[in-house]
Order: sequence, then C-alpha cells, then structure tokens
Amino acid sequence: MTNKNDESQILEVNTRFYQALGTRDLELMGTVFVHDDRAGCMHPGWVMLQGWEAIRQSWENVFDPQDQLEIKLHNLSVEIEGDVAWVTCIQELTYIKRDPIMMNVSVSTNIFEKNESEWKMVIHQASPLPMSAQEESEENNLQ
Amino acid sequence: MTNKNDESQILEVNTRFYQALGTRDLELMGTVFVHDDRAGCMHPGWVMLQGWEAIRQSWENVFDPQDQLEIKLHNLSVEIEGDVAWVTCIQELTYIKRDPIMMNVSVSTNIFEKNESEWKMVIHQASPLPMSAQEESEENNLQ
Repeated sequence: MTNKNDESQILEVNTRFYQALGTRDLELMGTVFVHDDRAGCMHPGWVMLQGWEAIRQSWENVFDPQDQLEIKLHNLSVEIEGDVAWVTCIQELTYIKRDPIMMNVSVSTNIFEKNESEWKMVIHQASPLPMSAQEESEENNLQ
Repeated sequence: MTNKNDESQILEVNTRFYQALGTRDLELMGTVFVHDDRAGCMHPGWVMLQGWEAIRQSWENVFDPQDQLEIKLHNLSVEIEGDVAWVTCIQELTYIKRDPIMMNVSVSTNIFEKNESEWKMVIHQASPLPMSAQEESEENNLQ
C-alpha cells in the first residue's frame, strides 16, 4: 500500500511541523494543518484543542521567537492507508534559550490526510514520556 | 464521506476496547486490535508499545480480574476517510475496586482501519489530562 512519493511528502510535512514548533513560526504552522473543525491538537498535559482556529490561537499565545527549540525525533514510523497516514515517533524537545535549559520528551501520533494531492496534518497528539522509559527505548534501538 | 454503518461499527469496536480494558478481558481485547507489527499502544506516562504481541503481553502482565474499572467517555468524535478512521475522546477511568478508589482522566486518539469489511484498532494513544483541564472541558460542554 505504501507509495514512496506519498511517504516522502508525509515525512516532509511532519518535519515542517517540528520545524514550525522549534522556530515558533505560526505562518509555517499554518501550512501544516487542515484549516477546519476536524483539526485536533493535544499537547502533553493539556486539553484537546479542537479546530484549526483554537489550535492557531493557542500557538499565537505561546510562540515567542526568543524561545527556540532543538527537536530530535526517534523511533519514527509511517503507515499509509489510502488517503490517510499516521506517523508515530518519540519527540525530544530541548528549550535551548531557557535558563536552565528545559527538556520535554513525548510519544506522539500525527495523523495526515491527502487533499487534492497535498498531505495535511489533521491530528497531533503528544503524551509525556518518563525519562527512564525513553532510555529504555533508546536501548531497544541498539539491539 | 461518512457512512452511518461504518460509523456504528467503529463506535462498536471503540466501545469494545473500553469494555475489555474495564473488565480486564484479554480475549475480548484480542478481537479489537490488528494482530501485526503496526499495532501501537501508548498508555499515559508509558513507552510506546509496538506490535500486537508486545501490547498483548503488557496487558497479560497487568490485567487482574479483581481490578475492575468504570469507564466514561466524553467529547467523543469520529472521523472516517476511506478505510481509516480515528476517534478522539476524553476517557475517565475509575478503578472502583481499589482502596482508595483511583481515577485517571486522559485524552485519547484511537485509529482504526477496515480490513475485509471489519474495523480493527491500529493505534491507541492516551495522554494524561490534568483534572482542572477536564473540568474546563466539561464546562465547555455545557455552553
């Protein structure tokens, strides 16, 4: 079922999502999500934001260009079924401009759909991962 | 795009998932998930379990028939695109047999796919929700 072209486009949108998150770029984030009520976003320890307008507003409130992040993705997997795809990964966010530097490691599921040949994110959900669990996961990678 | 028959089948599998979780019924849970490596499960505060065998094993380790749960779902939404669907909801788990009684409120995304006319769960991800956020969400329901 996997089309290499679709897979590279999905990974490009997924990368763009983390780039927008890391550089606090609301305009770039606007190119990632579908702009309707089905868009959903669950940040770690947060309510479910439903609809693009609520998601956009929440990022407008917190995006500070001085607060850049370095983001690393681990255990990335892509599944494509027709016009829907989902990416699961472990996202490691480092808030490099904060003092002290903060880290946030989460498991995330990102759902994408294809509209007129373009893939867009519909759902982003990130769940906090305890640090010990992340180490275990990295060890599993080495086996 | 929504087919009423598909929607009711998806909701039935979604309900069966929570029934299996609540009654600690591993056999019933086995009828919910796809039985391959794409199956994924992220419990609140836990690693990502990849593949049905890892998921089954984790439940075999923790399922105790004496530890029944009452489960309520809020803010349930279903989206169907071809042979893939995703359900988002707030899941309220009450461990009624524990002393003191424990509660766990999470936001969850469940991804389903249709194989030979039967819908199966591929991904379950639940993120812990702070209690204050849950109250806010319930207030929003009343508006």
